[in-house]
Amino acid sequence: MRITDLETPRLLLDLDRLERNTAAMRAHCRSKSVALRPHVKTAKSLDVTLLATGGEPLGITVSTLKEADYFARAGYGDILYAVGIVPRKLAHAARIVRETGVDLVLVTDALSVALAAGEFAAREGLRLSFVVEIDSGEHRSGLLPDAPAMIELARAIHQHPRLALRGVMTHAGHSYATDDPAGIRKVARLECEAARAAAEKLRGAGMPCDIVSVGSTPTVLLAESFDGITEVRCGIYMFWDLSQLSRKVCKESDLAASVLASVIGHNRTAGALILDAGALALSKDLGANAFMPGTGYGLLCDPFTMERLGDLAVTIVHQEHGTVPVKDEAWYERLPVGSLVRVLPNHACITCAAYDSYDVVRGGEVIGSWSRINGW
Amino acid sequence: MRITDLETPRLLLDLDRLERNTAAMRAHCRSKSVALRPHVKTAKSLDVTLLATGGEPLGITVSTLKEADYFARAGYGDILYAVGIVPRKLAHAARIVRETGVDLVLVTDALSVALAAGEFAAREGLRLSFVVEIDSGEHRSGLLPDAPAMIELARAIHQHPRLALRGVMTHAGHSYATDDPAGIRKVARLECEAARAAAEKLRGAGMPCDIVSVGSTPTVLLAESFDGITEVRCGIYMFWDLSQLSRKVCKESDLAASVLASVIGHNRTAGALILDAGALALSKDLGANAFMPGTGYGLLCDPFTMERLGDLAVTIVHQEHGTVPVKDEAWYERLPVGSLVRVLPNHACITCAAYDSYDVVRGGEVIGSWSRINGW
Repeated sequence: MRITDLETPRLLLDLDRLERNTAAMRAHCRSKSVALRPHVKTAKSLDVTLLATGGEPLGITVSTLKEADYFARAGYGDILYAVGIVPRKLAHAARIVRETGVDLVLVTDALSVALAAGEFAAREGLRLSFVVEIDSGEHRSGLLPDAPAMIELARAIHQHPRLALRGVMTHAGHSYATDDPAGIRKVARLECEAARAAAEKLRGAGMPCDIVSVGSTPTVLLAESFDGITEVRCGIYMFWDLSQLSRKVCKESDLAASVLASVIGHNRTAGALILDAGALALSKDLGANAFMPGTGYGLLCDPFTMERLGDLAVTIVHQEHGTVPVKDEAWYERLPVGSLVRVLPNHACITCAAYDSYDVVRGGEVIGSWSRINGW
Repeated sequence: MRITDLETPRLLLDLDRLERNTAAMRAHCRSKSVALRPHVKTAKSLDVTLLATGGEPLGITVSTLKEADYFARAGYGDILYAVGIVPRKLAHAARIVRETGVDLVLVTDALSVALAAGEFAAREGLRLSFVVEIDSGEHRSGLLPDAPAMIELARAIHQHPRLALRGVMTHAGHSYATDDPAGIRKVARLECEAARAAAEKLRGAGMPCDIVSVGSTPTVLLAESFDGITEVRCGIYMFWDLSQLSRKVCKESDLAASVLASVIGHNRTAGALILDAGALALSKDLGANAFMPGTGYGLLCDPFTMERLGDLAVTIVHQEHGTVPVKDEAWYERLPVGSLVRVLPNHACITCAAYDSYDVVRGGEVIGSWSRINGW
């Protein structure tokens, strides 16, 4: 099948680029002597993840229990669920552990959660594993490494007979606040320092800390050293996107995910092409625009060559319509109503979530359909 | 089941409010002597749509062929697909018509599409129906009513033995550019005038124009007269949302869709509650903020009473995390880690698309699960 046979909008995944991106990150982590625990939150796909882990169902990171469930049942035996759990979700986590035998590592920064998990595990007669979430400067979640509450939480986990303290994790999401490699490198250093400091606190207090986990794609790529770090978590590098390109952590020719759309109208009054890719097909993410003004909701490419179509961008989205202003009337000839374009998304994690599957392509050829596990 | 039994995030639909909203719009259209052709793009649900049409599978509007397919197979026999079609999608449209017998009305503003549809219909031995899309001032899509291309397109449809010209449609999406009722009323008047003018052109040229279709929720509510208009299309009124509230076209107590979320952390360093509802669970739509600054990605409510929780709002979203700044430390006591909140979304059409189903509630009781037909 050719991409011209697809009914738009569709989510395309360029297999050559995906293979290159996943191989490059595995090589990078090998060269840095740190384990890669890929984050599956972007791809949410078994096929993509198997490329990321190098063909074996090795350790992964998930963002939902639904992903944990899905990957555990597919044979992944070492899963870190990287979003703080709450007591209401413990029964689901326990069910996954019981039914699959997965080593599921949970995350929290709240003493009350650890206490509730201890009671739950005792009542249910099972064992739950935790890492303590550390705030390395993003101030989203986590405890500061030197906060008394950090060591208090670790101790509550460690001392409970039904809980296992596995270590610490942090995420330097604020690495996205800059497009300056030196700035990212500094965030990466602080991320590793915070994780290491927390690990040392735990060990100094006689507690185990087997996992010392950091990661965001930019910091994993730019960190100078992973000394004292046992693993890195990142996910967007599999696909890359305009937000990453705008932060100069990838090249345009790395972008593996795109939305295939049709030109459904020419609005010569407004001076615009209208696409059948709007707010749902592209998402309302504008993340790249901070560093690449004019990106809008996505940049247009030739559907076959992936060459950019001038500076054409989707600047307005309605639910199913995307508006692409054109200054040069020649675009109406070049892109008649019914023609195809590919749109590079701002933020692949968000755009891909609108689709149940990828159409996997090499050039203009569709060579497969890979499913995604969306929702919660 | 109670909402406290649900694993978050979940999409809740308040049945009392939904029933009130759908009944009110039916009464409004009756009082204005105009047919209501509800737009199912917000709800994408058979159960919701049956309330909107008053218990019978009457005429509806859809935004995707997947919706057309789904509703046609469920017995809806009169469907307007309100997004411009392209030749690549004609085979799907034809399949729906053949297999269900639905009266499927297609939309275009492009002569090339009409010509291709004529050839396709002749080749396939079937008949396709079209309305011509009119631009009533939004300048998204459609032709101006007095444009020579408008009448030329209508004639190409009308003269083709395999195509049926059914009339004209327009959508005044720019009614959302103001929160002033007088401004909306003016847009509504211009919307009706454009549709009527186009209809008169067609009839004046000896062509039929049985359908004269207008609509956006604000213009349908505020138009003074639907003289010469045969039907109105609107959808968001079933649920309402903060974007509509910010334009003063509904009351806060009308909002029927909300996201049930858990507090998964207290970040006292940053002064924030962290929710498990982020960019995917809420969407990145910020539509209400233009007229209601401080709305962020959504406003927090008590999960049972739906009373607003002060002015708490989600101001930062990551994929699965939502950050809610708190000035008063008392909120940490009132909303401990693990507690539930409901988040009112900016734009229900976009937020709901992240969920496969609604948990239908009356008060704190979950009384059903209604599925949605997402994607394309």
